[in-house]
Amino acid sequence: MENKTVAMYVAQPIEWTDRGVVMLDQRRLPSEEISHTYTDYREVARAIREMVIRGAPAIGVAAAMGVALGVLHSPATSVDELRAEFPRICDVIAKTRPTAVDLFWALERMKARFAELAAQSDLHKIKQALVAEARQVHLEKKATDEAIGRYGAEFMPREGQVMTQCNAGALATAGIGTALGVIRVAFEQGKKIHVLVPETRPYLQGARLTAWELHRGGIPLTLITDNMVGHFLKTGKVGAVVTGADRIAANGDTANKIGTYQIAVLAKENNVPFYVAAPISTFDLSLPDGSHIPIEERSAAEVTHIQGVRIAPDVPAANPAFDVTPASYIAAIFTERGVAKSPYTQSLRSLASEKASA
Amino acid sequence: MENKTVAMYVAQPIEWTDRGVVMLDQRRLPSEEISHTYTDYREVARAIREMVIRGAPAIGVAAAMGVALGVLHSPATSVDELRAEFPRICDVIAKTRPTAVDLFWALERMKARFAELAAQSDLHKIKQALVAEARQVHLEKKATDEAIGRYGAEFMPREGQVMTQCNAGALATAGIGTALGVIRVAFEQGKKIHVLVPETRPYLQGARLTAWELHRGGIPLTLITDNMVGHFLKTGKVGAVVTGADRIAANGDTANKIGTYQIAVLAKENNVPFYVAAPISTFDLSLPDGSHIPIEERSAAEVTHIQGVRIAPDVPAANPAFDVTPASYIAAIFTERGVAKSPYTQSLRSLASEKASA
Repeated sequence: MENKTVAMYVAQPIEWTDRGVVMLDQRRLPSEEISHTYTDYREVARAIREMVIRGAPAIGVAAAMGVALGVLHSPATSVDELRAEFPRICDVIAKTRPTAVDLFWALERMKARFAELAAQSDLHKIKQALVAEARQVHLEKKATDEAIGRYGAEFMPREGQVMTQCNAGALATAGIGTALGVIRVAFEQGKKIHVLVPETRPYLQGARLTAWELHRGGIPLTLITDNMVGHFLKTGKVGAVVTGADRIAANGDTANKIGTYQIAVLAKENNVPFYVAAPISTFDLSLPDGSHIPIEERSAAEVTHIQGVRIAPDVPAANPAFDVTPASYIAAIFTERGVAKSPYTQSLRSLASEKASA
Repeated sequence: MENKTVAMYVAQPIEWTDRGVVMLDQRRLPSEEISHTYTDYREVARAIREMVIRGAPAIGVAAAMGVALGVLHSPATSVDELRAEFPRICDVIAKTRPTAVDLFWALERMKARFAELAAQSDLHKIKQALVAEARQVHLEKKATDEAIGRYGAEFMPREGQVMTQCNAGALATAGIGTALGVIRVAFEQGKKIHVLVPETRPYLQGARLTAWELHRGGIPLTLITDNMVGHFLKTGKVGAVVTGADRIAANGDTANKIGTYQIAVLAKENNVPFYVAAPISTFDLSLPDGSHIPIEERSAAEVTHIQGVRIAPDVPAANPAFDVTPASYIAAIFTERGVAKSPYTQSLRSLASEKASA
């Protein structure tokens, strides 16, 4: 199938510009599209902490750009002064989302680059090189998504419905997205895809973010509630399901947003292939299987309230943020290095070692 | 197991009292428990139309009581005058919820009783007999629920989690409920049941009504979102699922609130028995299977908004109110005449014909 060059809107959760770091305020979506331009790295730190931007890869990009911004506008008049200030900049960024793995990965990368550069004495060149490094981090995230999208698009139906879950889109990755990247590439290739979007309670990332991304991108969609997924997998002629992943164990068991497991079971029951789209950084081969993946339990108030409005009496509520989909329900895993299939213990290790040798 | 006489709160959506017809305003639940006392049948009609009361059996009781109230307070000074007024009272009640089968069943029953009584000339006796008939309708609904509850309770685990869906409780039936009646009887028998309550988007009957009923009745529960049902059926040591039914075809295929089908599939996948609790009036043996059951499609606004607050951009949304669970996923159907098991084509017909001969 030929690649058509269709100019489509892709959400830009973060961009480096001459005016500063521009962030789309995801807290205001979908009702308002408001961007903020930050020229101080402390503003970037606050934006990460207050969830103007969310999604692990996107937070990594924001962290790198925050460090670059801090260095660029540093009052230091010598490399020695900048060397003294640099750890303080990194600390401010580090203290925003303490469990975000991508954030620390990005900080380590910026620190390593600074260590390389600090041997030289040209302050201006150091600043420009760190800005370039942050932009490079962003470009690499984009390239990863594009590769995942190309591998996965081959598995999308030529025509018909595709279901996703939560938001594994541009808003989360700062690229074209993982699961939504696959859908986007397939759509750009001319496949006539219509996306079924579960709203994804309790946080409604499907309704608020995925529906908005697809709508703005011109990709047709239908929003459904989470208890409609079985009905549509049974009656809706769905050609594929594709979701993101938070963590993938060595045997292919995949942790992702709560609700993913039941979609996978219902897909299999109705002979619809269920795919996972995720970068290799999501692999955690130190875990033999999904039973070792810890499940974050969040506040009951997210279930008993919707956008601040109480919807239930004052009763106990459970709120596991993720569930684990056994590998046996997963038809394939799309990564930036290729497609993994069962047996995953072999295919995932093979893809991961390619990365190590690259 | 012995029946313990535990005095438990049972929600009373409607009661006949000396002061008039008392209705609990279900629109205000769970935030407020407000009752209205109606002395004019036109107020009862408006309450049905405006959904102060909902649930097919409860609406049937309200219709019968509305007719009784109209007759009781009729200005007629002779049986002839009452005979002239009676059809107008019935018409006002009939024009409230045009698709509610129980409403028309109740009206036909009150009309038949009136026809029997109108031969006699004592206006006071006619009025009292129609009031007694309406109260009898209510008592029969209660007896049906109690019988379903007793049959079903045997299948509940002695201890552990039970999952339900939507609200098949006292609020819907004006008895102890069907699915929730089963849970209540089992609980009163001393079974240590903990109920998992899916919130049941888009209308949130689980969060608003079932959680409230159980909480008020002292039965322990945990509220979950609809995308958590698979996770808890896999990991939560659930001993049984029990739901209500809107219509049951001759082969046992069962239409019920959207989300029921996927719970049934996930229950089977995890070796949890899935039960349906429903009166024989729910049977529609004229339909060979579930493919003949029409699915009501409701407004997209119920999905894109929650309690008036917009949660999604202005995109298309699907809103099927029901889905169909194939009989192969149903371990048993509890009715007021006994328990139907596979093959349902035989067991349902057998129970239905007992009814006809009763």
